Amino acid sequence: MTDTRDLLDASPSEIPLEAGDLAAAIDACLRAEQACVACADADLAEAEIVALRRCAALCTGCADICAVTARTLSRPGAYDLYVIHRLLQACVRACTVTADECEQHAAHHQHCALCARACRACAEACSEVLDDEELQELAKLAGG
Amino acid sequence: MTDTRDLLDASPSEIPLEAGDLAAAIDACLRAEQACVACADADLAEAEIVALRRCAALCTGCADICAVTARTLSRPGAYDLYVIHRLLQACVRACTVTADECEQHAAHHQHCALCARACRACAEACSEVLDDEELQELAKLAGG
Amino acid sequence: MTDTRDLLDASPSEIPLEAGDLAAAIDACLRAEQACVACADADLAEAEIVALRRCAALCTGCADICAVTARTLSRPGAYDLYVIHRLLQACVRACTVTADECEQHAAHHQHCALCARACRACAEACSEVLDDEELQELAKLAGG
Amino acid sequence: MTDTRDLLDASPSEIPLEAGDLAAAIDACLRAEQACVACADADLAEAEIVALRRCAALCTGCADICAVTARTLSRPGAYDLYVIHRLLQACVRACTVTADECEQHAAHHQHCALCARACRACAEACSEVLDDEELQELAKLAGG
Repeated sequence: MTDTRDLLDASPSEIPLEAGDLAAAIDACLRAEQACVACADADLAEAEIVALRRCAALCTGCADICAVTARTLSRPGAYDLYVIHRLLQACVRACTVTADECEQHAAHHQHCALCARACRACAEACSEVLDDEELQELAKLAGG
Repeated sequence: MTDTRDLLDASPSEIPLEAGDLAAAIDACLRAEQACVACADADLAEAEIVALRRCAALCTGCADICAVTARTLSRPGAYDLYVIHRLLQACVRACTVTADECEQHAAHHQHCALCARACRACAEACSEVLDDEELQELAKLAGG
Repeated sequence: MTDTRDLLDASPSEIPLEAGDLAAAIDACLRAEQACVACADADLAEAEIVALRRCAALCTGCADICAVTARTLSRPGAYDLYVIHRLLQACVRACTVTADECEQHAAHHQHCALCARACRACAEACSEVLDDEELQELAKLAGG
Repeated sequence: MTDTRDLLDASPSEIPLEAGDLAAAIDACLRAEQACVACADADLAEAEIVALRRCAALCTGCADICAVTARTLSRPGAYDLYVIHRLLQACVRACTVTADECEQHAAHHQHCALCARACRACAEACSEVLDDEELQELAKLAGG
């Protein structure tokens, strides 16, 4: 159990997106970041490193994008919906591509199975926020 | 529920510290990071910003230290016990100082109450790893 | 002098964008990140904190976006042009909004003047990469 | 040319360490971070990935430690000398170990040669700050 939702509710700033969806996306980003960091590290120690090199590269990059997405969504006082929109798109894409790669190794490496699941969940949670009509509308008005 | 412990267990690298303690510290770091990011953002939007400026400064710095501690502990393939020892010391200190500050505002600001609790829990979880006799011994041998 | 360009040239991966523009954007991102971190910290210590609170909030968020953009552009082995396109858009926007805010305080606070200049330079360097026709074309094909 | 030193001078906070040394350490950390990120990515794309796997793992971890050290030193308003002392120790160690590894591949891989040099320079710049007598004294008083 995290306090993510309670922290959003405790902010004095108005939050123009659904707080439950935001909290779910933040938590999913942090889990995917952690899984990607661990999976990349494990890949490098496996005997099959040659087959896992693309996995390690994708996980390393995906971790950083998940991290910045979690932080940006955690700051309603400084929300810029255009920035949020673009970061969420980048995060959904990075998580989807990483999950696709990890799934190919999931049968042989439990860290890949866990990481694929965490990235897939993150892509879904971020898509949920991205589907918000108001976000799409405002991102457009905001110059997107 | 996170997969942190399962990811440690899935690593092909030998883990010279207690995996349960490590997983608890990683999760506590990620929660404290998220709480600190949210609390600093909320501080800046409060009417009492003058009284909360030190809280915002401490939370911003603490978030970064929690983040790097979580990542470093998540990479058993590249563990350097001297580095881990120093990072854990820095993290315990940053979290303790931040929790002390947040507690002074906890009665008036729910985000400070939540952040204080998350930082205190992180300091405790990191201390648990730091108390490991082997870590202290190896950190010393390693040149600490 | 940095080695950014030489490191891009030393990568065994093919780089589908102009290396000089990429190196300039990476360096500009790292400078803007550093300036934003320093400016936010200075804002919180100024007597005029009430007037500078929005500056501190924007700088804090902008720093994280510059950091992830610098890292993502530094990894040609894992380039995903759709992700790069979206991150660059987010970075240009965050830097432009932060520079606009910092400029309003530039006459009174040298850290704001320096930060405004670094953010403006970063927005320009990232726009240069973003203007690459191939990037726009590939980002579209890639599902953008 | 960076504005790092000018930003330290523009801070309203008193700086208890030598500003020139601090600015040099911050810039060296950012360069080492960038080199490590690029070197790890290049390692994964090399034919000799098996021989370079330890290099990739060390560079990935070192990058994160350099990043947090640069940020922490850039925030004099929130300086905690005990935290700074521990982070600098961790950074010197991570950079030294990474430089040692990269140097073994420097003859065959230009990215390793560049990264070794950046890490060595970072270890030296951080050691310079660490050697400050006042820092050592205060770190002790502060509970170190």
